[in-house]
Amino acid sequence: MNRLQQHERWMREALREAERALQEGEVPVGAVVVANNHVVGRGHNRVEALQDATAHAEILAITAASNTLFTWRLDQADLYVTLEPCIMCAGAVLNARLRRVVYGASDPQVGACGSVFNIVQDPRHRWHVDVVSGILAERCSELLNAFFQEKRRLRKRATKEDRSTSSAGG
Amino acid sequence: MNRLQQHERWMREALREAERALQEGEVPVGAVVVANNHVVGRGHNRVEALQDATAHAEILAITAASNTLFTWRLDQADLYVTLEPCIMCAGAVLNARLRRVVYGASDPQVGACGSVFNIVQDPRHRWHVDVVSGILAERCSELLNAFFQEKRRLRKRATKEDRSTSSAGG
Repeated sequence: MNRLQQHERWMREALREAERALQEGEVPVGAVVVANNHVVGRGHNRVEALQDATAHAEILAITAASNTLFTWRLDQADLYVTLEPCIMCAGAVLNARLRRVVYGASDPQVGACGSVFNIVQDPRHRWHVDVVSGILAERCSELLNAFFQEKRRLRKRATKEDRSTSSAGG
Repeated sequence: MNRLQQHERWMREALREAERALQEGEVPVGAVVVANNHVVGRGHNRVEALQDATAHAEILAITAASNTLFTWRLDQADLYVTLEPCIMCAGAVLNARLRRVVYGASDPQVGACGSVFNIVQDPRHRWHVDVVSGILAERCSELLNAFFQEKRRLRKRATKEDRSTSSAGG
């Protein structure tokens, strides 16, 4: 299995997490932490379920990996995530000393691993994090697009129903 | 009570959290989230206890505040923290839409609210976060200095004991 195939293998695991997020009505982002060729932590976005802005897929996967390995120092581990990490999650990658971030879709709004900010590779840090982007990007984006399309559709329907109720009532 | 006195009042609450961290052998950083003139979330650094790099005082206080208020959107709340937030925590402040960050001691190594990075006031964000620095800074720094001095003292003693053991053995 070459390097790209390996990345795709773990990204498929992250995608399974993103699909779980979608089923739960969350923005579909999933992440896994991989060490020694094993998934040691998994997480999917749970911001709405937990009503907690820090409950991003990456944070939950990093916490899970630390629990598995009994250490906060994940310097032999890699993070796979379906969407480019935000600033908070890029900061968590640095704090946990992760070796590498592999992401699927880019985030042109708040992406912090190259798109808008480049947090993890800022020369002011004392350590280096590898970044690999675009792994199964199409599938990762499809999930996000499906989610936001559905959200827009529901919002439109709600507005329409509101209007018809108020015109019936008036 | 004027604005400065109010800030000092809440910073004293954050300092109580930092003291708890110190008692637990953690880098002494404490945080509280304040909304409507009440503490709605508290946290102190628990990275070593939980072996989790994401268990910073600010993250735990934000999660606690979200639990109290039943919402991830803390746009009417302020974060008080004894040490300038790192990138991860500054990112969490943005994600949680906090209104203001008030911190005590600056962090010339990894501070992300003005010292090394200025994450929360980057013009690329769509919202604005107020930053107030230097509140009870001396007391906040004292705690940190005491912790690192004690750590150095213990390390020195351990090295000394190691040397005397190996010379006795050799």
